Amino acid sequence: RFREAISRMNEADIADFIEGLSQNNATLAFRTLPKGLAAETFSKLPPETQRTIINSITEQELSFIVEELSVDDAVDMLEELPANVVIRVLEHATPETRKVINEFLNYPENSVGSIMTVEYTSLRAHMTVQDAIKHIRRIGEDRELIYTCYVTDNRRILEGVVTVKELLLAQDNQRIEDLMERNVICAATTEDQEDAIQQMMKYDFISLPVVDLEKRLVGIVTVDDVMDVMQQEATEDFEKMAAMAPSERPYLKTTVFSLAKNRIAWLLVLMISGMVTGGILGKYEAAFSTMPLLVTFIPMLTDTGGNAGSQSSTLVIRGMAVGDIKSEDFLRVLWKELRVSILVGAVLSAVNYLRLMISYPGNKGVALTVSLAMFATVMMAKTIGGVLPMAAKVLHADPAIMAAPLITTIVDAGSLIIYFTIAQRLLAL
Amino acid sequence: RFREAISRMNEADIADFIEGLSQNNATLAFRTLPKGLAAETFSKLPPETQRTIINSITEQELSFIVEELSVDDAVDMLEELPANVVIRVLEHATPETRKVINEFLNYPENSVGSIMTVEYTSLRAHMTVQDAIKHIRRIGEDRELIYTCYVTDNRRILEGVVTVKELLLAQDNQRIEDLMERNVICAATTEDQEDAIQQMMKYDFISLPVVDLEKRLVGIVTVDDVMDVMQQEATEDFEKMAAMAPSERPYLKTTVFSLAKNRIAWLLVLMISGMVTGGILGKYEAAFSTMPLLVTFIPMLTDTGGNAGSQSSTLVIRGMAVGDIKSEDFLRVLWKELRVSILVGAVLSAVNYLRLMISYPGNKGVALTVSLAMFATVMMAKTIGGVLPMAAKVLHADPAIMAAPLITTIVDAGSLIIYFTIAQRLLAL
Ligand SMILES: [Mg+2]
Ligand SMILES: [Mg+2]
Ligand SMILES: [Mg+2]
Ligand SMILES: [Mg+2]
Ligand SMILES: [Mg+2]
Ligand SMILES: [Mg+2]
Ligand SMILES: [Mg+2]
Ligand SMILES: [Mg+2]
Ligand SMILES: [Mg+2]
Ligand SMILES: [Mg+2]
Ligand SMILES: [Mg+2]
Ligand SMILES: [Mg+2]
Ligand SMILES: [Mg+2]
Repeated sequence: RFREAISRMNEADIADFIEGLSQNNATLAFRTLPKGLAAETFSKLPPETQRTIINSITEQELSFIVEELSVDDAVDMLEELPANVVIRVLEHATPETRKVINEFLNYPENSVGSIMTVEYTSLRAHMTVQDAIKHIRRIGEDRELIYTCYVTDNRRILEGVVTVKELLLAQDNQRIEDLMERNVICAATTEDQEDAIQQMMKYDFISLPVVDLEKRLVGIVTVDDVMDVMQQEATEDFEKMAAMAPSERPYLKTTVFSLAKNRIAWLLVLMISGMVTGGILGKYEAAFSTMPLLVTFIPMLTDTGGNAGSQSSTLVIRGMAVGDIKSEDFLRVLWKELRVSILVGAVLSAVNYLRLMISYPGNKGVALTVSLAMFATVMMAKTIGGVLPMAAKVLHADPAIMAAPLITTIVDAGSLIIYFTIAQRLLAL
Repeated sequence: RFREAISRMNEADIADFIEGLSQNNATLAFRTLPKGLAAETFSKLPPETQRTIINSITEQELSFIVEELSVDDAVDMLEELPANVVIRVLEHATPETRKVINEFLNYPENSVGSIMTVEYTSLRAHMTVQDAIKHIRRIGEDRELIYTCYVTDNRRILEGVVTVKELLLAQDNQRIEDLMERNVICAATTEDQEDAIQQMMKYDFISLPVVDLEKRLVGIVTVDDVMDVMQQEATEDFEKMAAMAPSERPYLKTTVFSLAKNRIAWLLVLMISGMVTGGILGKYEAAFSTMPLLVTFIPMLTDTGGNAGSQSSTLVIRGMAVGDIKSEDFLRVLWKELRVSILVGAVLSAVNYLRLMISYPGNKGVALTVSLAMFATVMMAKTIGGVLPMAAKVLHADPAIMAAPLITTIVDAGSLIIYFTIAQRLLAL
C-alpha cells in the first residue's frame, strides 16, 4: 500500500510527491508518514506546503517535528511563517530548543550564523580512539554530521579536529590529542556566508566549524546547505545584474504582481537616465538634421559600447564574487581592460571602416567618424565596465549593480558625446 | 624550520604558498614536502605550477605523484598538459593506473564521467557490520571517501548503499543486506554533469554513485568536485550571457590576447546585427528629418526595451539552469510574461506620458506616440525575452545565448519599427 511505497522512497522524493498534492491530500499524506521520516521530509517541503501542514496538525505532532528538525531547518521554516504561527510553534518546543531557535533567529541574514546548525559531534582531547568511537555510537543518532568531529575543552573552546576516517584508521588506544589536527580552519558567526562558501571550496570540507568571539564552538555549517547558498547567491547576482530585485521563490511560483514589482524600480531608474541621454542627443539636433545618415549608426554604436562594457563588468563582478579579484587589484584590472579594449576596439573599428567604404564609397568622412567613434567608445566602455564594479566594492555597495543595464546607460551617453564631437570636427557640421 | 611550518599547514594553504613563489622556488619547496602531503598539495596547484613542477622532478617522484593522485585529479592535470608531458606521465604510471586514466580521459567534457573518481568504498551484501567496519579499516587509507559505502555483487552491479553512520549505529552482527537502502539514486557516466549537481543538491549527498550501461558501479562523484562544477557552470553562464566565449582561467591569469579573443566574436556578430538595425532606422529617415525631436527618444526606448527583455530572459535562463523551469512550461512562461509585461508596460508608459506632457506641454501627439511605443516595446521585449531561451533549449542550443546582448539587439529593431509606425500614423509624417 501507500505507506509501504512511501517507506521505500527517499525523503526528497516524498517531499516532491507531497508538494504535488492538493492541500488536503498533502496534509493527509504527510500524517501517514512514519515518525522517522516526517521531520526529514518536512524540511524538504517548500514554505507554502509547510504552512498548510502546520495549520492542520495536532499540537503534539507539531512539537514532535520542531524537536526533530535540525535547528537550521527549523529557523528557515520559522522565517517564512506568519508571526502567530511562529508563536504557536515555539510554544510547542522544549525550553532548550526554544532558546537555541531564538538565538539562531537573531543572526543577521546572509551571515554564517544564519546557515549553521548545532547538531555537531564533539570529542575531548584526552579520549582514546576506542572511547571516541563508543561516544559517537552513543550520540550519533541525533547528530546531523558525525564524520568530522570537533575537539573542545570544558569551556567549549575549539582545540582540534579529527575525522571518523582517521579514527577508524588509527589504533584503538591512541589518544585524540595525538591524532587531531590543531590548526582548525573555522568561521565566525558574524562572517558573510559567501566567505564560508569560499573556505569550504578551498579546503574541500564537508562541514565547517563556527565559533563565537571567544573562540567557543557554537555550530557547524554543512556542505549541503553551502551548496544551497552557492546557488542562491549566484541566482541573486544574475537577477541583480539584470536590473531586478532578487526574489526568493522559483520563477513559476512567484506571482505576476511580485515579478512586476521586482522589475519595475530599476526599469524606471534606467528609463529616466535614458531621458538624460535623450537630452544629450537633443543638443546635437543641428548636426543630425544636417546629416540624417548619422542617426542610423546610433544603435550600432551605443549597443556595441554597451556590450563591450558589460563584458568587462561581468568578468570583474564574477571575479570578485568567487574571490579571484580583490579590491587591491584595481590597477591590474584597469591596465588589463585598457589593453584588451585597444585590441577589441581596433578590430571592430577596422571592420566598420571597411563596411562603410563599401556601402558609402564616396563618404570617407562618415566612415572615419563612425570608426573613430567606435574605437573610442569601446575603450571608454571597457574601462568604465572594469572600474565601476571595483569602485562599488570600495564604497561597500554590491558590485553586481554595476552590470549590463547601468553600464549600457552610462556608456550610451558617453558614446553619443564622443560620436557627435568627432562628427562635428571631421564633417564640419 | 620550513618543513615543520609546512607540516602544520593545510594542503590548500601550502598550495597557495607554493603558487606565490618563483618557478625555481616553487619546485624546491614542493620537493621538501613530506610524501604524504605531496600528492594532495599537487592536486590543489593551478595547471601552470603543476607543469613547472612536472618538468623538473625526477621520474621516480613523478610516478609517485601519479599513483597517489585521485584519478579525477590526475585526469584534470593531464587535460591541461602538452602531449609530450602526458606521455611522460603515463609512462611512469603502473599499467592499472594507466588503464583507468586512459578510460577516464575518454569521457566527454562536462559528462558525469569526466568528474568522477574511482576511489570509492564498496561492500558485499552478506557481510556483517563487524566485517564491514574491519574491511573499511583495512582499505580506507586509499579511498577518497569512506562514509558512503556502495554494496555491489560479484559483477560490480550496484545493489544498495549504506553509510558509516548507519554502520556505527547498528549492532555488530547485523547484515549489510538488512541495513542497506536498496533504492539507490545514481547517475550514468554519460549524463551531463549539471544533472549530477541537481541530484546531489536534491538529496544532500556527499557522494553520488556512477554506473555504466550495465548498471555496474564505475565510480563516484564527490561533493567537493560538484561544488567546483557548480561554480564553473555559473561562471560560464555569466560569461555566455554577457556575449563572451567562456574562459577556463581566472580573470587575472588570462592573457590580454585571449580575453580579447573571447570577447571579439560575439561583439562582431552583434555589431553587424546593429548595422541591420541601422538599415531599418534609415527607412524612416523621412520621418525623423521632418521631426528631429523623435530621435531624442530612441535611446530611452530601445534601452528600456533591452532591459525589460533581458530581465525576462535572465529569469528564464537561470530557472532552466537550476531545474525550476522545464521545456514543458513554455506556455506558463509565456502567459506569465504577458501579464507581467502589461503591468510593467502600463507603469512605464504612464510615467513617460506625464513627463512628456510636462516637458513638451503643447505636444500631445509626441507624448502619445512615445508612451504607446513604450508599452508595445515592453510587451514585445518581455515576450521575446521569455520565449527565446526556451526555444533555444528545444532546439538543443544553450539557452544562455539568448541573453541580454542578443535580446537587446533583436528588441532594438522591433522597437524602432513599432515607434516609427506609430509615429507615422499618429503624427501623420
Ligand atoms: Mg537560515
Ligand atoms: Mg551575500
Ligand atoms: Mg575544492
Ligand atoms: Mg542543514
Ligand atoms: Mg538543507
Ligand atoms: Mg552576493
Ligand atoms: Mg541600446
Ligand atoms: Mg575532469
Ligand atoms: Mg554544461
Ligand atoms: Mg539540498
Ligand atoms: Mg576529487
Ligand atoms: Mg577537487
Ligand atoms: Mg551550462
